[in-house]
Amino acid sequence: MKIDVLTLFPEMFSGVFGSSILKKAAEKNAVQYNVVNFREFADNKHQSVDDYPYGGGAGMVLKPQPIFDAVDSLTQNNENSKPPRVILLCPQGKVLTQKVSEELAKEQHLIFVCGHYEGYDERIREHVVTDEISIGDYVLTGGELGAMVIIDSVVRLLPGVLGNEDSPILDSFSSGLLEHPHYTRPADFRGMSVPDVLLSGNHKHIDEWREKQSLKRTYERRPDLLDNYPLTEKHKKWIEEWKQTKKD
Amino acid sequence: MKIDVLTLFPEMFSGVFGSSILKKAAEKNAVQYNVVNFREFADNKHQSVDDYPYGGGAGMVLKPQPIFDAVDSLTQNNENSKPPRVILLCPQGKVLTQKVSEELAKEQHLIFVCGHYEGYDERIREHVVTDEISIGDYVLTGGELGAMVIIDSVVRLLPGVLGNEDSPILDSFSSGLLEHPHYTRPADFRGMSVPDVLLSGNHKHIDEWREKQSLKRTYERRPDLLDNYPLTEKHKKWIEEWKQTKKD
Repeated sequence: MKIDVLTLFPEMFSGVFGSSILKKAAEKNAVQYNVVNFREFADNKHQSVDDYPYGGGAGMVLKPQPIFDAVDSLTQNNENSKPPRVILLCPQGKVLTQKVSEELAKEQHLIFVCGHYEGYDERIREHVVTDEISIGDYVLTGGELGAMVIIDSVVRLLPGVLGNEDSPILDSFSSGLLEHPHYTRPADFRGMSVPDVLLSGNHKHIDEWREKQSLKRTYERRPDLLDNYPLTEKHKKWIEEWKQTKKD
Repeated sequence: MKIDVLTLFPEMFSGVFGSSILKKAAEKNAVQYNVVNFREFADNKHQSVDDYPYGGGAGMVLKPQPIFDAVDSLTQNNENSKPPRVILLCPQGKVLTQKVSEELAKEQHLIFVCGHYEGYDERIREHVVTDEISIGDYVLTGGELGAMVIIDSVVRLLPGVLGNEDSPILDSFSSGLLEHPHYTRPADFRGMSVPDVLLSGNHKHIDEWREKQSLKRTYERRPDLLDNYPLTEKHKKWIEEWKQTKKD
C-alpha cells in the first residue's frame, strides 16, 4: 500500500510514522509513506495556499490550485489497477468506524488531504476528493491527527503487519462486544486482588466469566452496540438479571 | 493547564506538540506538556511493564505497579484546588464529543495513560483512572493518537490560544449544523465556477444561501444531528422541499 499525505505541517508525522507498528509496517514493506507539503505546489510567488472566502466571513479558505496540482503529481504515474482513494479529513465527512478502516485496508493507494483550521474550497471536495471522513464529533485544529488515526487503524490491518507479539487484545469492535476485564500479576497489589475465578485454572468457568463480563460491560456502557449483536438465550437471561438488580 | 502523558512511545509526541497551535499554546504559557515513559517506573530489574493475563489467553496486560507509581509521582505535589483528571484511552470508554472536550478544557491538570496494544490490568481502571475515553468506534495500535486528539481538541479551547488568524471556521459541531460550502478565488478554476450568489455582494442573500446549504448538508449527511437542533419554520419548509425532490 502506498500512502501519501498532503499537509502544511509535514513535521507532525515523523514521530508517529517512525514509531511502533507504523514504523515496523514500513520496514516490512507492507506500506510506503510519503508526506508532501502542498505549499510547494502553489503557483504564485508568495507560495500562498489560502485566500479570503467569497461572500465574506471570518477565516481563510484553501485555494483549489495547490491541492489539484499536488494530487495530479501523485496520480499521473499510477500503475495500479484502481485509481487512488483521495480522502479529505473534515467534520462534515462520514464518521470513521472499524468497517470503514477494513474497507480502506483493501486499497493500493490512499492520498490524505489535511487542511489546517482553514476551510476547503468546495471544488476540491467535488472534483478531487473521493471520500470525506471525520474521526468523530469534535473539532480539531487540522486534518493531520485525523489522517494519522485513519492510517494507524488501516495499516495495522494489512497482512503481516501485526505479529503474534502484538496480539489484537484491544479488538473490541471486531467481536461486536467490549472487552472483558484483564488482570495480571501480582494477584494482590496494595490490597487489591484478582477475581478468584481467574486463579482457579477452570477454563470453562473462566470463559463463561469473561463472556458475561464482556456482555455486562457492553450492556452498561454501550448498549447501542447490542442492537446489531446476535444475543443468545443465555445472554438474554443475563441481561434480565441485570435489569432486575437495577430495579431492586 | 498542565498536561502529563504516560506512554511507552514518548517520541511519538514531539512532532505534534512541536507544531502549529499546540506549540503556540505552550509558547503562550496556556499549557505545559510533560511526556513520561512509564517504563522508568517499573520496579523490576528488566523494567518490564506487562505480563501474561490471569486465566490465559493471547496478548499481554499492563501491570498495575508502573502506572500506579508514575501517577503517584505526578500528583504528590498537587497544588491545584482540584485533583487531576486521569484519563485512560481505551475502546471501552465514553466516546469523545465536543462537549467532553469543552468540559476537560475547564480543568487545571490532565494526566493521559496510553497503553499500546496491550490490555490494562483492571485495577488501573478501578483505582487510578477517573475517566475512560474512546475517540471513536475503531481500533488503534495504542492510546497515543487518542491522547493527541483529545489534547488538540482541548488546548484549542483554552483562553487566548486561538487568535483571530486561526478563526474557527471548522467549528461545525459548535453551531449544531455542518458547515456550508466555502469558495475562494479564482471565480473560475479550470472551468469550475463559484455560485453566483457569493459574487453578488448581496449579504442578505449570501447569509440565506449559507444557512440553507448548512442545513441541507446536515440533512443529507448527518440527519442525527438535527434531532437536537432547534429547527425554525423556514428550516422545516426547506426540509419538506428536499423530501419532495427526493420523491419526484
